[in-house]
Amino acid sequence: MTFPQRVTAHAPGSIGNLGPGLDVLGAAFTGASDSVTAEWFGEEGVTILDSGHPSLPTRADEHTSGLAALAVLERARANGVKLPHRGIGLTTRKGLPLSGGQGGSAASAVAGAVAVNALIGGPLERNDLLLACLTAEASVAGRHLDNIAPSLMGGVCLVRSLDPLDVVQLPVPTRLRVVLAHPDQQLRTAEARAVLPTSLPRETALAQMANVSGMVAALYSDDLPLLGRSMHDLIAEPARQALLPGFGVAKAAAIEAGALGASISGAGPTLFALCDSDVGAHRVAHALRAAYESCSIPAQVRVARIDTHGTRIETDALVGR
Amino acid sequence: MTFPQRVTAHAPGSIGNLGPGLDVLGAAFTGASDSVTAEWFGEEGVTILDSGHPSLPTRADEHTSGLAALAVLERARANGVKLPHRGIGLTTRKGLPLSGGQGGSAASAVAGAVAVNALIGGPLERNDLLLACLTAEASVAGRHLDNIAPSLMGGVCLVRSLDPLDVVQLPVPTRLRVVLAHPDQQLRTAEARAVLPTSLPRETALAQMANVSGMVAALYSDDLPLLGRSMHDLIAEPARQALLPGFGVAKAAAIEAGALGASISGAGPTLFALCDSDVGAHRVAHALRAAYESCSIPAQVRVARIDTHGTRIETDALVGR
Repeated sequence: MTFPQRVTAHAPGSIGNLGPGLDVLGAAFTGASDSVTAEWFGEEGVTILDSGHPSLPTRADEHTSGLAALAVLERARANGVKLPHRGIGLTTRKGLPLSGGQGGSAASAVAGAVAVNALIGGPLERNDLLLACLTAEASVAGRHLDNIAPSLMGGVCLVRSLDPLDVVQLPVPTRLRVVLAHPDQQLRTAEARAVLPTSLPRETALAQMANVSGMVAALYSDDLPLLGRSMHDLIAEPARQALLPGFGVAKAAAIEAGALGASISGAGPTLFALCDSDVGAHRVAHALRAAYESCSIPAQVRVARIDTHGTRIETDALVGR
Repeated sequence: MTFPQRVTAHAPGSIGNLGPGLDVLGAAFTGASDSVTAEWFGEEGVTILDSGHPSLPTRADEHTSGLAALAVLERARANGVKLPHRGIGLTTRKGLPLSGGQGGSAASAVAGAVAVNALIGGPLERNDLLLACLTAEASVAGRHLDNIAPSLMGGVCLVRSLDPLDVVQLPVPTRLRVVLAHPDQQLRTAEARAVLPTSLPRETALAQMANVSGMVAALYSDDLPLLGRSMHDLIAEPARQALLPGFGVAKAAAIEAGALGASISGAGPTLFALCDSDVGAHRVAHALRAAYESCSIPAQVRVARIDTHGTRIETDALVGR
């Protein structure tokens, strides 16, 4: 059997908790990704050759790409795959912000898993890759797939169930655009999860359920006004809004400028807005810049599309073994 | 302007709380309906000429078809419609069981509203009719549209929001069949609603949300296995099951016989099962009969399709006014 000498995987960023879809709905976006290069290195184990950022851990069992790589190797062995007696080195390049709410930890995990899987001959299928990444994500950002699934598969993903694993890729209206506004704020995922209510009034739960269902119906029926009408998060956004100065002002400005809807991307602090055209998205981006500026909060704002490709692979020369 | 002398409307029965879709998802079914005939009668007001059943009230402001008729007249007047100075008589024929969980009160309301609207020249549009029926349903069975919407519009309906009104009709896979098992049990809607939990653990709410979204995705993508995998109600069914002797045994028998899923129709006691073929549905019907028999509970079981027409109208001769 031959193995590639080196593989690089590029995993797009993603919006988790898409609107009302807490833990359940996520979307990949274009224009920013994390990349992981996997290559044969040393005698055994997984080595982080470059963690991608001075703040990120350099141990494989602490870095999200290393954790995902280890989980891939373990699943491959459990599936009876014979692996070469060699070690693997990982080099991560972070295109996504740390703790930004843009799915950075998920993208590093996905890129690590996909790169290592390709390096060892691609034995794992989609669901095994999702579960390997879930192991990694669970130890850094909580046990949910709403970033991992779109980062791996592309598009908008519905995580119907984790146990058993059941992920559905939803259609993406071609006119749909995303505006991402990343204010210069620190919000740790753990803190953002801690403020979520542990129980909910039944009426709130049913309304949220109706809104997520409305988003799913809107994506299938290419009904962007319905997508906008369904973009109400009654659970995470009210709880987290207090942690995010400027969010309320910025969201109102986005809606005023014609966004279909806006909410917190993942656990924040990134705000995302959905728009029904390129022109509209740039108008909303302008409004978001002005809104954060009016609050004296520096913010990076950009327009993106939904990434429908998911993780891409570059493979270097094949070497015989 | 001319008005018909007499109009009869036939509104199909419906499954409310379709699986996990408490208050949010409902489906009309074929083979049983309530009919209301509206005709000019007397000097003024609405008179119940026949309530349709000895147990049903004979006052218009207590009978669901009368309440809906009154709400239609009020909305028509509010919209500036000039109505004849005559009274209206209503004759109801009940094809659906009382307190059966088959959307009988909703069907009588819908048939009453549609018949009266047609009698006065059809001034009200869909959403006004839904709201008129909601007024009626709210006073007898709670403020929800998951029976009314499919009974009026046909098919499977998603009630995205009541305020403002937002109802989405979902596609119906052609192979989908419904089995209805009506055990000889009394379960009052008020009692069935009283046992619903007023608050929910967040994880339960999110899982229910994922399942309803999975059902919506399944209907759009014609994916009946996904429909089955999504048919888990973690809110109403666990709470109401204890009120329904035999339900657990019957549900298990339906699944064992190949049903995609099974749950309580509306507030019960009717059990419904979804199936992916005619042959499969008859096998499940057989299993349900045997299961209830083994519990010594008499039950009426039948196979139906999803009714995609909604309420049908028969108009008698037009008379000039």
